[in-house]
Amino acid sequence: MAALVPGSAGAGTRARVVIVGAGFGGLECARKLNWSGADVLLLDRGGYHLFTPLLYQVATALLNPSEIAYPLRTVFRRSPNVRVSTTTVTGIDLTRRVVHVRPGGEVPYDYLVLATGSTNNFHGNEQLAETSIGLKSLADGTRLRNHVLACLERADCESDPDERRALLTFVVAGGGPGGVEYAGALNELLRLVARRDFSTVRREDAHVLLVQGPDRLLTAFSERLGRYAERVLTRRGVEVRTRTRIQAADERRVTLSDGSVVATRTVVWTGGVRALVPSIPSDPPRRHGSRVHVDEFLRIPGAQGAYALGDAAGAEQDGAELPMLSAPAIQAGRFVARAIRSDLTGKQPGRPFRYVDKGTMATIGRNAAIVQLRGGLELTGFVGWLAWALVHVWYLVGFRNRVVALARWTWYYLRFDRPIRIILQTGPDPIVATLEGPEC
Amino acid sequence: MAALVPGSAGAGTRARVVIVGAGFGGLECARKLNWSGADVLLLDRGGYHLFTPLLYQVATALLNPSEIAYPLRTVFRRSPNVRVSTTTVTGIDLTRRVVHVRPGGEVPYDYLVLATGSTNNFHGNEQLAETSIGLKSLADGTRLRNHVLACLERADCESDPDERRALLTFVVAGGGPGGVEYAGALNELLRLVARRDFSTVRREDAHVLLVQGPDRLLTAFSERLGRYAERVLTRRGVEVRTRTRIQAADERRVTLSDGSVVATRTVVWTGGVRALVPSIPSDPPRRHGSRVHVDEFLRIPGAQGAYALGDAAGAEQDGAELPMLSAPAIQAGRFVARAIRSDLTGKQPGRPFRYVDKGTMATIGRNAAIVQLRGGLELTGFVGWLAWALVHVWYLVGFRNRVVALARWTWYYLRFDRPIRIILQTGPDPIVATLEGPEC
Repeated sequence: MAALVPGSAGAGTRARVVIVGAGFGGLECARKLNWSGADVLLLDRGGYHLFTPLLYQVATALLNPSEIAYPLRTVFRRSPNVRVSTTTVTGIDLTRRVVHVRPGGEVPYDYLVLATGSTNNFHGNEQLAETSIGLKSLADGTRLRNHVLACLERADCESDPDERRALLTFVVAGGGPGGVEYAGALNELLRLVARRDFSTVRREDAHVLLVQGPDRLLTAFSERLGRYAERVLTRRGVEVRTRTRIQAADERRVTLSDGSVVATRTVVWTGGVRALVPSIPSDPPRRHGSRVHVDEFLRIPGAQGAYALGDAAGAEQDGAELPMLSAPAIQAGRFVARAIRSDLTGKQPGRPFRYVDKGTMATIGRNAAIVQLRGGLELTGFVGWLAWALVHVWYLVGFRNRVVALARWTWYYLRFDRPIRIILQTGPDPIVATLEGPEC
Repeated sequence: MAALVPGSAGAGTRARVVIVGAGFGGLECARKLNWSGADVLLLDRGGYHLFTPLLYQVATALLNPSEIAYPLRTVFRRSPNVRVSTTTVTGIDLTRRVVHVRPGGEVPYDYLVLATGSTNNFHGNEQLAETSIGLKSLADGTRLRNHVLACLERADCESDPDERRALLTFVVAGGGPGGVEYAGALNELLRLVARRDFSTVRREDAHVLLVQGPDRLLTAFSERLGRYAERVLTRRGVEVRTRTRIQAADERRVTLSDGSVVATRTVVWTGGVRALVPSIPSDPPRRHGSRVHVDEFLRIPGAQGAYALGDAAGAEQDGAELPMLSAPAIQAGRFVARAIRSDLTGKQPGRPFRYVDKGTMATIGRNAAIVQLRGGLELTGFVGWLAWALVHVWYLVGFRNRVVALARWTWYYLRFDRPIRIILQTGPDPIVATLEGPEC
């Protein structure tokens, strides 16, 4: 008997919904199908929902991994019809309507919700993929934290000035919200916090370089907000280079498209993502960034009962693809849950999915964030920062996480400090490992 | 120029003290040499002080790693003469009076404090070393947490009853304080918490087996307390087998000295430790458990200016070696700091080191701990448990950690819950990886 069947006890006549991926879209869909007439199985590799908007705070030693990752079993602890399983989906057969999972087995479905999200896209540059550290998964975040702290430790006992400069130079690739938020937070870690613990690391030694291909930061925001972010970052010491791309990178240096070579031990990659979709034999058409093509009801064309949403799907609206953000994924998750509920009760599908953009926001650092609201209202500075903090605490899953994050932020805001400064080495860091030992 | 020299700025005429290891003994010694006339360099592999008495709480998903690990740089942030370096000591030359560190280099010293602690001792059983998980380092703790959570996940989707039983059987080897505390806490995690998240895992499915060689638990405590611990554990569902040792273990089963074979995926090793001492060419005499021999002033005989303390040293008192506990290490750290200060000011050494045993304690679980105080006073049950909690919070390094630990304990005590239930996979788990995939 296959132990993994959707739903609770005594399945059989009830419809089986399999949701693959518990990111923003998959989690919202499962929540809205809670207490429905369907047996729901939520499959996720890690078994937790990751609050990615705060991942950069794990990577800069402000939050613990467990504070932005919430176990799915706890979310659905009291649910009568949603089951959770920590498994890797290896493939999906849209014709036979089964999901292949590892440890080996097949899970049959009546409805499939493909919400597998996205991963780092290095645009085929293998060397860059090996040398840089991304910022998409929890493992990325802790690896980056360990790496940055290790660079500081190394720099502290390094006597060669060139080597020292390379250890304290951090290149962030990509000037979207991810890159801007990480560059801002890293700059604060290096300039406000590190010099208190590393007496030899002076404020002016640290160097954060933010590299952006387009001619300004944050192209998804208005030009005014993009320029504001650039101004604030520059004033705080981050070097922003627009119209610049990374041409090549190895363990010791980065070559930029403007011809300059920067000696560094750290390249943080936020320069692109692509959809992460398990293997599907009847390969459905893909779109830009390998997102699965879906119709206006978020259904995969030609595949009965199969939906796709969020970063994994390339839903179109007004001639453009929806952005790869949490908000459209959440709204789509809600939409698909409603569509499945309607279908279960024999109702006709309602109107097509329409994403309502309520606004976007990004922090640049202490007392500075940008918020672009629906209708054109824009906030910057401290007001924007307060709005950012409130919204993010509100959306953090679980009461405890909200309290902890708020308490930490308040405490460390007042003290200019960071709490999680331990290098928990659980595996080798290929980048730091290649460093030759300084004369300590 | 070698960048790593003890002390602050402008060394030269000041005495150089090198402390190797920042456990309880090394940290205490460095603290007591703060603001002294010596330049102190504290070397530690991880760069943090680990509060090992609470490691089992990390391993049972109650505390975060950063809550029991405190960055040394923060401890000595305002110190004028104590420098910290995160480096691995590869060897010590007692004749030339230099410490070899990696990244490569030599650190000269006038005074050496060897406080390198201990590591798991598998008594030469290679197979056991590979198969079991220890409970000495922070990496051990997080690995064990991940492993236990992974076993629960696997069991939840396993249909073969034998395989399921093996996944939910946990063998703890060693009935000292470490084994008793972990067995008690794991039993609670499995019986009180897990069943709320894993609907298929019933209270009676989980099986914790505590194996102890001597004829009773906690031989360092009085017989009454040892028997009490056994009674409480048994009543709560832990199977205690005394006069039993592990004969052989592989990924699928454990063979005990009484001939029985237990199918299990988890062996937790608390069955012994041995001193962890870097390579010393002029190999000083060793004692039981490879501890370095020291005289009554904790000096390494024949080595000028070299002290050894804590688990690394085999100090004798009243004909017996001092126990490998935090209390004698702390007192020895204080003693050595005082001895170095005396020496610096040209004073004669005072009286020999004498460890004052103020008492020992161990928790067995919720509302139950044992405390054995100097003079024969013994506490058990809820009173002992309160005393245990107060003492441990008091000794946790750093105000923030104390507040966090207290808040967490209170909250989860009231709610019968555990907060850190995410499997943060940063490397492969060799034990779980060898499991064949259940039919999920």
